[in-house]
Amino acid sequence: METFRVRFEPEGKTVEVRQGATLLDAARTAGVFVASICGGDGICGKCRVVIETGKVDAEPTTLLTREEIRRGYVLACRTRVLGDVVVAIPRETKTEGAQILIDEDAQRFRALYPTTAEPAFFRRDPVVRKLCLELPPPTLQDNLACQERLIREIRRCLDAPVLQMGLRVLRDLPADHREGGWQLTATIGHRGGTTEVVQVERGDRQRSSYGVAVDVGTSTVVAHLVHLGTSETLDAEACYNSQMAFGEEVTRRIIYAERETPKRLREAVVADINNLISTFVARNPIEIHDVVALVAAGNTPMVHFLLGLDPSHIRKAPYIPTTTAPPPVRAAEVGIKINPRGLLFAVPSIGSWVGGDVTAGILATGLYQTDRLTMLIDVGTNGEIVLGNSEWMLACATSAGPAFEGSGVQCGMRASRGAIERVQIGPGTHVEIRTIGGGIPQGICGSGLIDAIAGLFESGIIDRSGRLLLDRSSRAREVDGRGEFVLVAAGESGSEADIVITQPDIENLLRAKAAIYAGAKVLLESTDHTFQDIEQLLIAGGFGNYLDRGKAISLGMIPDVPLERVRFVGNSSLIGAKMALLSVEAFERCGVIARNATYYDLITYPGYYEEFMSAKFLPHTNLDLFPTATHVTAKPTGKESG
Amino acid sequence: METFRVRFEPEGKTVEVRQGATLLDAARTAGVFVASICGGDGICGKCRVVIETGKVDAEPTTLLTREEIRRGYVLACRTRVLGDVVVAIPRETKTEGAQILIDEDAQRFRALYPTTAEPAFFRRDPVVRKLCLELPPPTLQDNLACQERLIREIRRCLDAPVLQMGLRVLRDLPADHREGGWQLTATIGHRGGTTEVVQVERGDRQRSSYGVAVDVGTSTVVAHLVHLGTSETLDAEACYNSQMAFGEEVTRRIIYAERETPKRLREAVVADINNLISTFVARNPIEIHDVVALVAAGNTPMVHFLLGLDPSHIRKAPYIPTTTAPPPVRAAEVGIKINPRGLLFAVPSIGSWVGGDVTAGILATGLYQTDRLTMLIDVGTNGEIVLGNSEWMLACATSAGPAFEGSGVQCGMRASRGAIERVQIGPGTHVEIRTIGGGIPQGICGSGLIDAIAGLFESGIIDRSGRLLLDRSSRAREVDGRGEFVLVAAGESGSEADIVITQPDIENLLRAKAAIYAGAKVLLESTDHTFQDIEQLLIAGGFGNYLDRGKAISLGMIPDVPLERVRFVGNSSLIGAKMALLSVEAFERCGVIARNATYYDLITYPGYYEEFMSAKFLPHTNLDLFPTATHVTAKPTGKESG
Repeated sequence: METFRVRFEPEGKTVEVRQGATLLDAARTAGVFVASICGGDGICGKCRVVIETGKVDAEPTTLLTREEIRRGYVLACRTRVLGDVVVAIPRETKTEGAQILIDEDAQRFRALYPTTAEPAFFRRDPVVRKLCLELPPPTLQDNLACQERLIREIRRCLDAPVLQMGLRVLRDLPADHREGGWQLTATIGHRGGTTEVVQVERGDRQRSSYGVAVDVGTSTVVAHLVHLGTSETLDAEACYNSQMAFGEEVTRRIIYAERETPKRLREAVVADINNLISTFVARNPIEIHDVVALVAAGNTPMVHFLLGLDPSHIRKAPYIPTTTAPPPVRAAEVGIKINPRGLLFAVPSIGSWVGGDVTAGILATGLYQTDRLTMLIDVGTNGEIVLGNSEWMLACATSAGPAFEGSGVQCGMRASRGAIERVQIGPGTHVEIRTIGGGIPQGICGSGLIDAIAGLFESGIIDRSGRLLLDRSSRAREVDGRGEFVLVAAGESGSEADIVITQPDIENLLRAKAAIYAGAKVLLESTDHTFQDIEQLLIAGGFGNYLDRGKAISLGMIPDVPLERVRFVGNSSLIGAKMALLSVEAFERCGVIARNATYYDLITYPGYYEEFMSAKFLPHTNLDLFPTATHVTAKPTGKESG
Repeated sequence: METFRVRFEPEGKTVEVRQGATLLDAARTAGVFVASICGGDGICGKCRVVIETGKVDAEPTTLLTREEIRRGYVLACRTRVLGDVVVAIPRETKTEGAQILIDEDAQRFRALYPTTAEPAFFRRDPVVRKLCLELPPPTLQDNLACQERLIREIRRCLDAPVLQMGLRVLRDLPADHREGGWQLTATIGHRGGTTEVVQVERGDRQRSSYGVAVDVGTSTVVAHLVHLGTSETLDAEACYNSQMAFGEEVTRRIIYAERETPKRLREAVVADINNLISTFVARNPIEIHDVVALVAAGNTPMVHFLLGLDPSHIRKAPYIPTTTAPPPVRAAEVGIKINPRGLLFAVPSIGSWVGGDVTAGILATGLYQTDRLTMLIDVGTNGEIVLGNSEWMLACATSAGPAFEGSGVQCGMRASRGAIERVQIGPGTHVEIRTIGGGIPQGICGSGLIDAIAGLFESGIIDRSGRLLLDRSSRAREVDGRGEFVLVAAGESGSEADIVITQPDIENLLRAKAAIYAGAKVLLESTDHTFQDIEQLLIAGGFGNYLDRGKAISLGMIPDVPLERVRFVGNSSLIGAKMALLSVEAFERCGVIARNATYYDLITYPGYYEEFMSAKFLPHTNLDLFPTATHVTAKPTGKESG
């Protein structure tokens, strides 16, 4: 079959593909990032590219305007290569390279516990640690074999009833003993009930001992480099999850894994993690050989992808994963490049749709040990909610959708440089914005969207059902029969078009906030509680760093509880993963949390759909639920038409 | 560098080697067996080959007669290739292909315990077993993940507090669950304190479960195929240990491993084991995939070689091995071809020179649990001796040398077809012989040598110091100033020369029997016992199958205890390995035996050398020690000259 060359501009990356390949496939092969939510089904319309020259076969689509088609726009996933092609990727399609803001606040690790008032102290005892041992040289009287001498010495330092050692370690042991001057450093790993001598080094290498904690998110991968001896966080870095090329939604990726193989999804996220680790090694005076452990927290499908496990039954009734408690494995076995004998641990999941990221969050926030009724909301695509205390825990996932992460929104983007993260709508529809990094606005991220919609609602520009009232502002207009509000005009933005909030954007956000609110309400009702009973409301997620609590309440996204009970806990998944990395006790606690928490399937709750529909109003159909929000909504409510 | 072709006759195997390579190296490369005790140091004179055509550089040697040199004989290890060469390997140099007689008596396994009167019953529970499980299909109510469902079901069947499972097993688990119709067979392995799910198969595969027990001896490798479900022994096979190409003596092989690499020694014995397993698979209706476990018992260096561990410090003070309790490993990791996930277990050693073969022997004979004072002698190159009972055990190795195995003896050969195994020397020096297999005699093996020398002594042809009295028989003669006794004349033998017993042969055997006797005496004395205290004397080793107990006592090889207290226990190493294969309890008992038995270093006993020198007489300097033997020796003793 004939092959053709496809060049992607502006990078100039060129790749050879077979006739009939889609441009999206070509981009994946070339390693060029093209946004895609639906994973190549021609549904989301995110993979817009421009054909500069060359012959292609583009399927008809309603997702492009006539003007766009005239200018050469096609959907990459629905366009097949019929000759050598030059393709331009517009800025809105290419988010790669944008700098992600990450929480690299190591203090947060220790500062978090005060939010629960019950501090938890785990013994400092990393899941993998180095132990320097002085061995007595053998004599005719003390003629124990090399392995047994080493075990004797290790057991003097720590309690290890079941101690394992592989052939690789044993083969070098006699030389290590002698040439190390009878001083050895044993790397000891905890592998689910047993202790493994992972490697033996000569001399004292105790200080050269590093670990990595990773939050494997659906859209971003965040990693911290930790010194296993001092527990200090040395570096932090994040990147996009390049699995997004296979679909922004998790279920799309599962379908890809089912149809093709989970292998490419594993390779994608492993490459991301390896890049982050390479960055750490480049920026810090460490050797990759001394990175001996990695603890990953992610939702259940993410962990399946990472380990190359079959995720397909997660999305099919009765929704069972391959495992909720994956065994520790050698990181090299999945392709992660740390010490070749270093270990990879995954924080155990609660269920198919409530993963190790939530378990880690429960650990990090101390929810599992507080006496006070606590709700933890992880604001993200899955919108997981946990309700409970030291006695019981109930968890659910709400499928909030990607609106909070800037996806499924006309001018949405992730919380990266240039994203509008704060919006103030003043009198006379004066709009004030603040972007991440302070530069020219490129689009709007989740927190900006919430600010904007709350502001529009407070200003009476949208009504309680979320409808834009076009006569209330000069910035409101109708385009193609659809209302929209101009936040930033084209001239002031970094985009070629106005940055707008459209009627469908508002509806997406309303659905998302309604899903979370309804989930929270169902958890409460099924345990005979009301919102008033919540003594602590913890908001997690990278998102939460920028969220205005008051606005979130006035939208009805989070329940109307006194503001002093609401705390942002940041990326609690990462924090929990780091705690597990630094303490076997904490890691084992994750197992207990995961087993003890009950997964609650919202679908099985008869009233969920009604709750969801009621919550789609601003702030809610039943204003009594939002006493605080009522006064701000009094005016616009009075002018409501329907 | 130039290369030349070397052809080995009569096989016709040809190999290309570099100029200057030795013929021994060429033979190893070609896979042609050439006997060698010294491993290539030009000392033993066993590697005699004949140059038929071609140019070589042969070092001068005193180990070949002028006549042999005239006929083209050279030592393969001291002869370098300088051109294309054709080499003939004489029968005496080439023992490969001779059929070894093996103990394939499966009944012996059960029949052994009566010798100790305290039967031991281990629970039937193989170290690796298959377990067929019926899993309830998941429902919304019972939505435990695949791995956790499997673990739940396994724990219903067996006690496994620490249960491990690798990624390979996990990756296929969801498909196995569903496509196996919710019926699975889990292969469960015991790995030192933890339980591993080695593999999962679909459907009921419980009956297809086999294991192999192997006695890895210095000269032969013996294997039994066992059904792990029924404990039945299905087949047995043996072969030479092809490590002999690197030296017949263990220390030679250790030196080879030190100078070169232990890798080639591992490869040699692994190839032997793989050949034995291939034979089992060819002869029986089984699949190699269903062989899931292998238990090996061998002396400590043999186990080091098998696992590719560094054996070098075994032979250097303070003589410590790499390990006495090697971890179970995947058999594939050392190259053994059974199920790729099948496990290899080594029976733990007592010390550097008392190995897992002795531990297995203690297990098999029940010595560790008898109330009666028991001595176990493993007659072989190392001549291990154990003294003890259920309260205590003391073990030593005597370095008896290879005389009992037919090596270091002019016409010696192993106990294979054509070997003289029985010798009767009647009046008038009439000699009656019996060969293994009944054919033409080719040489003499250990039991034949003992018979012959005992007969010569009883007939007064040799005196108490072992000196051949040339005037006592027409078969006795002097050649090159050295006495010898013609057992079989050239015309009646399969050899080109007379089969003789030489003065040095007698001295070798006397040294060997003295070493064992002195070792036994030292063990007794150091525990304040005498030979009369021995309530059971157990003789182990393939050798023991043919040994005449009375003759062994009359030679002073084994102590003069009443014959009814002496029992042959056969290959107790193999039997013990098989018991360990069939019962976790038995395998764990081996660990306890190995830890509890005390290794006794004869070198440290001040009187050992004197004991050894005294025991070099026939039957002993002190005849009071051999009341039974005294009457037979009365006549020749009276005629003794010195």
